[in-house]
Amino acid sequence: MLRTNTCGELRIEHINKTVTLCGWVQKSRDLGGMTFVDLRDRYGITQLAFNMDENKDMSDKARQLSREYVIQVTGTVIERSSKNKNNPTGDIEIKVSEIKILNTAITPPFTIEDETDGGDELRMKYRYLDLRRNIVRKNLELRHRLALETRNYLDKQNFIEVETPVLIKSTPEGARDFVVPSRMNKNQFYALPQSPQTFKQLLMVSGFDRYYQIVKCFRDEDLRADRQPEFTQIDCEMSFVEQEDILNTFEGLTRHLFKMVKGIDIPALPRMTYTDAMKYYGNDKPDTRFEMKLVDMKSVVGGKNFKVFDDAETVLAICAKGAAEYTRKQLDELTEWVKRPQLGATGLVYARHTAEGIKSSVDKFYDADALKKWSEACGSQPGDLILILAGGEDKTRKAMSELRLEMGTRLGLRDKNNYSCLWVVDFPLLEWNEGDPNLLASLAGRWHAKHHPFTSPKPEDIALLDSDPGKVRANAYDIVINGVEVGGGSIRIFNKDLQSRMFEVLGFTKEEAQKQFGFLMNAFEFGAPPHGGIAFGFDRLCSLFGGAESIRDFIAFPKNNSGRDMMIDSPSEISDEQLKELFIKTYQ
Amino acid sequence: MLRTNTCGELRIEHINKTVTLCGWVQKSRDLGGMTFVDLRDRYGITQLAFNMDENKDMSDKARQLSREYVIQVTGTVIERSSKNKNNPTGDIEIKVSEIKILNTAITPPFTIEDETDGGDELRMKYRYLDLRRNIVRKNLELRHRLALETRNYLDKQNFIEVETPVLIKSTPEGARDFVVPSRMNKNQFYALPQSPQTFKQLLMVSGFDRYYQIVKCFRDEDLRADRQPEFTQIDCEMSFVEQEDILNTFEGLTRHLFKMVKGIDIPALPRMTYTDAMKYYGNDKPDTRFEMKLVDMKSVVGGKNFKVFDDAETVLAICAKGAAEYTRKQLDELTEWVKRPQLGATGLVYARHTAEGIKSSVDKFYDADALKKWSEACGSQPGDLILILAGGEDKTRKAMSELRLEMGTRLGLRDKNNYSCLWVVDFPLLEWNEGDPNLLASLAGRWHAKHHPFTSPKPEDIALLDSDPGKVRANAYDIVINGVEVGGGSIRIFNKDLQSRMFEVLGFTKEEAQKQFGFLMNAFEFGAPPHGGIAFGFDRLCSLFGGAESIRDFIAFPKNNSGRDMMIDSPSEISDEQLKELFIKTYQ
Repeated sequence: MLRTNTCGELRIEHINKTVTLCGWVQKSRDLGGMTFVDLRDRYGITQLAFNMDENKDMSDKARQLSREYVIQVTGTVIERSSKNKNNPTGDIEIKVSEIKILNTAITPPFTIEDETDGGDELRMKYRYLDLRRNIVRKNLELRHRLALETRNYLDKQNFIEVETPVLIKSTPEGARDFVVPSRMNKNQFYALPQSPQTFKQLLMVSGFDRYYQIVKCFRDEDLRADRQPEFTQIDCEMSFVEQEDILNTFEGLTRHLFKMVKGIDIPALPRMTYTDAMKYYGNDKPDTRFEMKLVDMKSVVGGKNFKVFDDAETVLAICAKGAAEYTRKQLDELTEWVKRPQLGATGLVYARHTAEGIKSSVDKFYDADALKKWSEACGSQPGDLILILAGGEDKTRKAMSELRLEMGTRLGLRDKNNYSCLWVVDFPLLEWNEGDPNLLASLAGRWHAKHHPFTSPKPEDIALLDSDPGKVRANAYDIVINGVEVGGGSIRIFNKDLQSRMFEVLGFTKEEAQKQFGFLMNAFEFGAPPHGGIAFGFDRLCSLFGGAESIRDFIAFPKNNSGRDMMIDSPSEISDEQLKELFIKTYQ
Repeated sequence: MLRTNTCGELRIEHINKTVTLCGWVQKSRDLGGMTFVDLRDRYGITQLAFNMDENKDMSDKARQLSREYVIQVTGTVIERSSKNKNNPTGDIEIKVSEIKILNTAITPPFTIEDETDGGDELRMKYRYLDLRRNIVRKNLELRHRLALETRNYLDKQNFIEVETPVLIKSTPEGARDFVVPSRMNKNQFYALPQSPQTFKQLLMVSGFDRYYQIVKCFRDEDLRADRQPEFTQIDCEMSFVEQEDILNTFEGLTRHLFKMVKGIDIPALPRMTYTDAMKYYGNDKPDTRFEMKLVDMKSVVGGKNFKVFDDAETVLAICAKGAAEYTRKQLDELTEWVKRPQLGATGLVYARHTAEGIKSSVDKFYDADALKKWSEACGSQPGDLILILAGGEDKTRKAMSELRLEMGTRLGLRDKNNYSCLWVVDFPLLEWNEGDPNLLASLAGRWHAKHHPFTSPKPEDIALLDSDPGKVRANAYDIVINGVEVGGGSIRIFNKDLQSRMFEVLGFTKEEAQKQFGFLMNAFEFGAPPHGGIAFGFDRLCSLFGGAESIRDFIAFPKNNSGRDMMIDSPSEISDEQLKELFIKTYQ
């Protein structure tokens, strides 16, 4: 080894020890008689001391060190005269007797500090320097810890990690696949997996009983903010279980991770139906760190000749506790906020509930008695602010969900160090695809599997597949933490006929179904066990545990919103020789 | 849960317990009054007993169960009258009171037994049934265990697992890349990594200090037997180390794995130079379970007018201990064996050393005195057989290496439960590419990096880069177990100028080097630490620990020699819609 110790481990008990350290020059301070250099490595920072009087030579060398030089020093551990209580090595410093420059460094394009002056693009281009920042490295250490504890928990529960293939087959019924031309099989392509779904189900058919994998998945989407073309899942599947068993097992995992990684005991996870989530939160991933539930006001506000409410399909309210003192200016601003194209509300009605009574923005139509009914419906108290949106059902519910989250943020109810977890269950099996830009255009105007085509309908709803497919509920569930869908799964179909029927509902011809998923349906003929599973979005889970909004800083080498790796400048053109060997041509 | 217990856990102490089990019908035996069914799951086999007299109904149901039906049974644990000592559950059986068929099964195309009647192709097509076989599942359990213990060891040594990207950039200087057309970046391609080499080096530049990853890698090769287009590596890198530190760390990993997974204490690993490996074994991955070293006979056999030896560039012998009684027929057969086109020897000279003296196949040219010299050179004793090949250096050495291995096998010296590990060190830095079919044709007639372009030459050999590149030795090393290269690595170049020089030697123009590896060389300007690493072939390691020749049975869903997944029938054609979105065309 080029060192005897790391820069994070020397303490007062090491005094007089001769040590050799390696690392990067974080900064140096030349105080005339004394020169101090902070030496940094992954484990910490140790101060190097050079005394001009005692060793001029060494001091001169030290003065030539620039930031980010890589050096090796040998010296004696001595006690510091002025200790730094904020640094674990702050009691000591190294009196350096030898110094060797292992590598020089030009000036980095941004400072290697927690608060850097580098913008996003610059940091991504020089990601290898960005990763030197303590704060970014700690994110990846957290990720490592989460992976480790996930494996610890699942191993103890008899899960076996099995690697499934990355070069698989294109099944364009879901999001778009990335494809890989095969040189050995001319004009044929592999696809990269959007998830190991069919393989993990086949492992259940094989009797593997409990499978997991922390695995890369791929989706060729038009990248919204904070999506990555390649992402990581904790992918799991179990046999001989019912939904409740899976919820319990992975509630256990979630609690284990909070306990081991964050030191937090989280309570048992409540379960909420999809219907209730939509009703009370306008959202299938409700942020339950705060209440402020949506209240259906349609029957409360009618018959007062206020056309906006009378004509509206849906009228929804929330009661923002303690927000009655919101000024007119704040409320006008909030009104503009809900009118933005992303939400598209036509306006915002409000009522301040104060000690003096209730005053609304539509007092012309609603008298004190009417407003008292509003208050009763919303459960408002003096000091509260009632906010109301009206319009078409879907749009209004969605807008109200956003407004609720916005008010939660403004009122400080969404502390990222406070975690609220729940299961959302009983999702619809299908949704109508009006033309989702992340699906192939040829799939528009069809039913689309909300979860995926292998999700089991609830047995009692199977008859509805013919009469009213949109009403069929699935044995599907999501785990939601602080308004973020962290994982989702389902009990699977394990009967060939039901699986065929499902493909039919999704608009597959028999031939298409057989061509794409024949291997799975064939497998079901040889004795498939009842099974189900779940997948956690691992990048998202890491960012949530790290208390951050973006997943990007929890991925070592992320891509930007155009799917580019700015550091290695990829994707890039390939040579004609390569294209030729693959029997493909590009065109403009 | 659909069960209270697994099929592997019930013992004599569970007698009288009411249990519910789930699993597959392994077989059933109808003995008239009694019917017995073996129920199988991942954990074991439990016998179910049905008594015609006591419960005719249940017995009738049991008789309808075919192989591989999936059933759920409830019953009482009872003691068996005739116990089966070969089965951990063999002391008990279940007196069944309820039976439910969870799924039926058609007859599998081969038997689900350790010794199956299914051929390779059939087993691959129905891999999900093949994986039901105990013997195959155990391979994957071994793999899981090895991964787990690898992580345990490396975690304790402060390594951090970092996921590197799968969608990277094509760098066609190595083997062929698999490429992925980008929809969002028209006419550009990602490549799948042949290894995370540059990323792990960048992590060292970032100060991660100790990195590892168990990671999928991809290589578009014409598949030799037992190669897979996607394979798994244990990939590692360390900073501030010298070669010796890496050897010690990963010797530690190897010994840990043998200890924890096989219960074997292996001795410290000897180190052998590449030169010695070639000299004594004709091979850079010597099987050191047995001696039988190659002996250079050129100076011993000359001057006797035996033209074959006199004209030969190289004359090599091995001494096969205890093989003097080989019959003429066996020796003729061995002669045919070395003359096969794969080895291409022109003939085989032999000498039997018996109590009566030494008799050779070329006694015409060599008298007793001459043969005594042979014996002295080879160290033969009465009872031994000397085998000699002559011809051009490379061909003869390679053929003799093969003959040595063959004789080792024939003499029972290659017991797969006996492990001999070593390091081979001081590899040449470069080799001349005469036209390797696994490289792009445009790379022929150039120097090629034996390990990869980032491997550091030995400092004392750098001057030879100009005068005699083929003579430059690298700080590169392989770990070899039982004649198999299990892992390899090197100390890396960490200086921009030396890296540029290396690309130059490899025939890159400055522009090509900058375009493909500019990010790495730029990174080296910002303070790169001395670093080095290693990668283990994980599939190969698993097969070695499993005592098997082929890696295929240690991969859950392998591909065949044409790179096809026979089960899912991939690669396959994709739709015109998909091609169009990618702006590519295929052609014949």
